[in-house]
Amino acid sequence: MLRCRWLVLGHEASGLSFPTNRCLMYSSLRAPSKTPNHALKPLSSRNSFIRELTGRTGCQLNKRSIFSITNPSSIATSSLAHQGEVTLLPATNDNHGGVIVEMKDPMDSGTFISSLRASLEVWRQQGKKGVWIKLPIELANLVQPTVEEGFCYHHAEPSYLMLVYWIPSTRNTLPVNATHCVGVGAFVMNDKKEVLAVQEKNGRLRGSGVWKFPTGVVDPGEDISAGAVREVKEETGIDTEFVEVLAFRQSHKSFFDKSDLFFICMLHPLSSDIKKQDSEIEAAEWIPIQKFAAQPFMQKHELLKYITNLGMAKAEKGYAGFSPVCITSALTSRESCLYFNKRDLS
Amino acid sequence: MLRCRWLVLGHEASGLSFPTNRCLMYSSLRAPSKTPNHALKPLSSRNSFIRELTGRTGCQLNKRSIFSITNPSSIATSSLAHQGEVTLLPATNDNHGGVIVEMKDPMDSGTFISSLRASLEVWRQQGKKGVWIKLPIELANLVQPTVEEGFCYHHAEPSYLMLVYWIPSTRNTLPVNATHCVGVGAFVMNDKKEVLAVQEKNGRLRGSGVWKFPTGVVDPGEDISAGAVREVKEETGIDTEFVEVLAFRQSHKSFFDKSDLFFICMLHPLSSDIKKQDSEIEAAEWIPIQKFAAQPFMQKHELLKYITNLGMAKAEKGYAGFSPVCITSALTSRESCLYFNKRDLS
Repeated sequence: MLRCRWLVLGHEASGLSFPTNRCLMYSSLRAPSKTPNHALKPLSSRNSFIRELTGRTGCQLNKRSIFSITNPSSIATSSLAHQGEVTLLPATNDNHGGVIVEMKDPMDSGTFISSLRASLEVWRQQGKKGVWIKLPIELANLVQPTVEEGFCYHHAEPSYLMLVYWIPSTRNTLPVNATHCVGVGAFVMNDKKEVLAVQEKNGRLRGSGVWKFPTGVVDPGEDISAGAVREVKEETGIDTEFVEVLAFRQSHKSFFDKSDLFFICMLHPLSSDIKKQDSEIEAAEWIPIQKFAAQPFMQKHELLKYITNLGMAKAEKGYAGFSPVCITSALTSRESCLYFNKRDLS
Repeated sequence: MLRCRWLVLGHEASGLSFPTNRCLMYSSLRAPSKTPNHALKPLSSRNSFIRELTGRTGCQLNKRSIFSITNPSSIATSSLAHQGEVTLLPATNDNHGGVIVEMKDPMDSGTFISSLRASLEVWRQQGKKGVWIKLPIELANLVQPTVEEGFCYHHAEPSYLMLVYWIPSTRNTLPVNATHCVGVGAFVMNDKKEVLAVQEKNGRLRGSGVWKFPTGVVDPGEDISAGAVREVKEETGIDTEFVEVLAFRQSHKSFFDKSDLFFICMLHPLSSDIKKQDSEIEAAEWIPIQKFAAQPFMQKHELLKYITNLGMAKAEKGYAGFSPVCITSALTSRESCLYFNKRDLS
């Protein structure tokens, strides 16, 4: 028994007169049950199939758009076997030989599975590599069917889940998910050698009376320098100007086993009246640097000690950190920020 | 009509003789339909309820373990209304006033929804804030029910999806998902002033003949310094010793709208015989730095030009980048790496 089935893409690709996002599937063993204008006899070879289809449709058939499913058992075909027409999922090509499907409209899972299976077969025959499916949270009903077709999770944001499937038998070269959270700490010292210090309402130092530097997490898409200025403003009401990155710390197994990069920034104060944030900050003050450095907690906490020493070295001894310069890439039109020791390069 | 319902936690909390991960729910309007030893009359007040329950069970009842559901309409109760006993989801407390549920065993969605609703009510009464539910990919059937209870996605890794729900009416202070991918580029120069350069098989420079520095992405949990040494070894077979970070670049809207931090590292070569990686590298050679710098592409690509200049400044003019020191935190026992300008701090 021949186990051959044909997938034919829509007219732009194949010359056939049905929409491009649909495909016809012809079984070589029986006529498809639902092909309005193309009732076909069973056909056993690619060439006789093409001849027959060309004759019936009157179209010049693009042979590359006809894919034989050489291993029908590789896809679960129960829902396809008797279906003559399947809507392919809307996909765009990425820059790495893969396709991206952004699902938008509600769809029942049965229709989705049929479309996904037919689409996967088309992509497989086209030599595609990674298949990305982005499901908005409103389409959570499609998560389980997608996983059952062999997809893995790749990443998620509050409003969507990205799943991925690697078609080739070669090693998966898919990019990894984001691995790092990025935090900033701000060393802000005024002309009286007082540093801007806060006591936090939450977290491990709550109620300890320990003075620390304003810290925070950069927002998605925010520059490190802008994040530092924003956090200081939010927590203390003080306006500042970014000077440079004095140091950075990389740590692992932070929240959810992700890694963490914490940038220690020197900022220059542009105002002096503190207006503390009530929700997160217990107290905010200008504290003389010597008093700040003498806190017993500093002796146990190396990072806090380093920040103090680095800030003092910058203020008094010409320590050179990394300061930002905008650069553009030859490959994209986007600007980015390069941080380096400007003093030593010039 | 009174619309009061009671949730009673298991025995460790309440003194009642059923397992701690279960709760009984008593309606004040009718006796519960399925409470083997505790058929109760309708009760209108908390005190009469406690009296009645204590009398029937003979247990000393811990009042704190009895929660009245003051606003039953706030939870969809259809599946709970006639249910006398519900298994609470297994939860552990986090450090921020929330709870974490790690689902492990298969569960049908109906049972899951009942448990989730009862658990949410308990956590609400306990004043919990964030509720995290980690669903392994094998339990993809529970994604849709969890979303329908009001949860959002937080993040995902290939094997699991993390969802989160913020109970309080105050502003959500949940930590953000990881925002950055971290890459490394390696400037490796030998005593003959030749730099280690590669041509890549994939990506935008494929087939262009452009020589570039070895680059790559740090693995999850990997130190920047270790990632740079590993990438050079993988792509070229050359052993190196990490010297320092010369600069770093922050860019946005990279893969999947995530941001990107790219660390330019100076490495000292410990071997000279190149064994290139076949799958990703077209060619790898030691190229005289002057020839490398003279490539026409360099004039268009600011980053590549900066890397070359920074590497030369380091090799010949005493440029000071950031080098790593291990530090420990007073708050956790974990070690981390602080990168700073050692020359200027000492």
